[in-house]
Amino acid sequence: MATVNPLKRRGLLFILSSPSGAGKTTISRMILESDDGIGLSVSATTRPIRPGEVDGKDYHFVTDAEFERMVADGEFLEWAHVFGHRYGTLRREVTKQIEGAQDVLLDIDWQGTQQLKQVDPDIVRVFILPPSMEELERRLRSRGTDSDEVIANRMSRAKAEISHWAEYDYVFINDDAEHCRKLVHTVLKAERLKATRRIFLHDFVRSLIG
Amino acid sequence: MATVNPLKRRGLLFILSSPSGAGKTTISRMILESDDGIGLSVSATTRPIRPGEVDGKDYHFVTDAEFERMVADGEFLEWAHVFGHRYGTLRREVTKQIEGAQDVLLDIDWQGTQQLKQVDPDIVRVFILPPSMEELERRLRSRGTDSDEVIANRMSRAKAEISHWAEYDYVFINDDAEHCRKLVHTVLKAERLKATRRIFLHDFVRSLIG
Repeated sequence: MATVNPLKRRGLLFILSSPSGAGKTTISRMILESDDGIGLSVSATTRPIRPGEVDGKDYHFVTDAEFERMVADGEFLEWAHVFGHRYGTLRREVTKQIEGAQDVLLDIDWQGTQQLKQVDPDIVRVFILPPSMEELERRLRSRGTDSDEVIANRMSRAKAEISHWAEYDYVFINDDAEHCRKLVHTVLKAERLKATRRIFLHDFVRSLIG
Repeated sequence: MATVNPLKRRGLLFILSSPSGAGKTTISRMILESDDGIGLSVSATTRPIRPGEVDGKDYHFVTDAEFERMVADGEFLEWAHVFGHRYGTLRREVTKQIEGAQDVLLDIDWQGTQQLKQVDPDIVRVFILPPSMEELERRLRSRGTDSDEVIANRMSRAKAEISHWAEYDYVFINDDAEHCRKLVHTVLKAERLKATRRIFLHDFVRSLIG
């Protein structure tokens, strides 16, 4: 078993979803940099490894056959097809972190979130909205060289993703990344304080009233 | 209808319980002083008015017969006997504040909390624990002139109150009032951010994706 925090806190699964371009990646990075208690879990994927990536650090790179075996063996908490490749959140990676009183940040879409909620009702779900669809399109275009067709496709996917906003516990509008980070961080800090997650309370109360 | 905050937020019912002497009153005062978005609701009571108190401001002072009529008419969200008098939280006071996007801080015991949870499952329940029973007794004695018998009675009531800690959403140990206030305030700020309480989100998403 992993090292257990003296506070005996159970780590939580913290999900951040948003349409591509709404700033989820930026917010995730800001949260990970400003908070030692939360980390990413290393996912498995069937997409080819890219230059500079490290197997087992960036992803667990696996073949299609291997991914299928892992699905069949129930090794994933959730998995999804994205642009022709498969990505999955590994049960063993998440369990290891949670038992070590470490929170896990998951950057997944509404489908993965729905799957995860069924496996673990105790997850915390945060959705990031763009301030407007015009601004979202502007951000997608500013990324560089995508064709109008690709942009139109991303905008249509964004609408579909946003239509699931009401399935989330917290929904924020990202018109300023630092303000949005602050809101997400407030939620993370408060969710950690939930009595059900602070396992040490049982022993403490026993020491008080026997 | 009361003035509605432009954010169209629904106010929340924020409950603070603790055994007498654990610091609930201090924490409540600190929260009320440091946060404009939350206020107390004026309760009704059958206890006699004290010098300096104002009817309708400190309490709605009512007769036993009047209190009974109010109970029968369902005017209370919760009510309880405390030291021979009755105290009740008025439905109309709370509704007025919540519809005005104001949060309501309720300083009630586990029985009132149970009653309220049945009426409104959306309440937020915070319990304050003393750091030790010795410290609790020390605090009770430092108040002044209570006899040993009164102290023993309060300690026994404290144990009974603490035994209900697991019925609360958040449970904090008050070994430092300012630290404890910070934790309670983090919870208050995060609970306000729950998507279900931010009614304006419906209109906002409609403006995004129609």
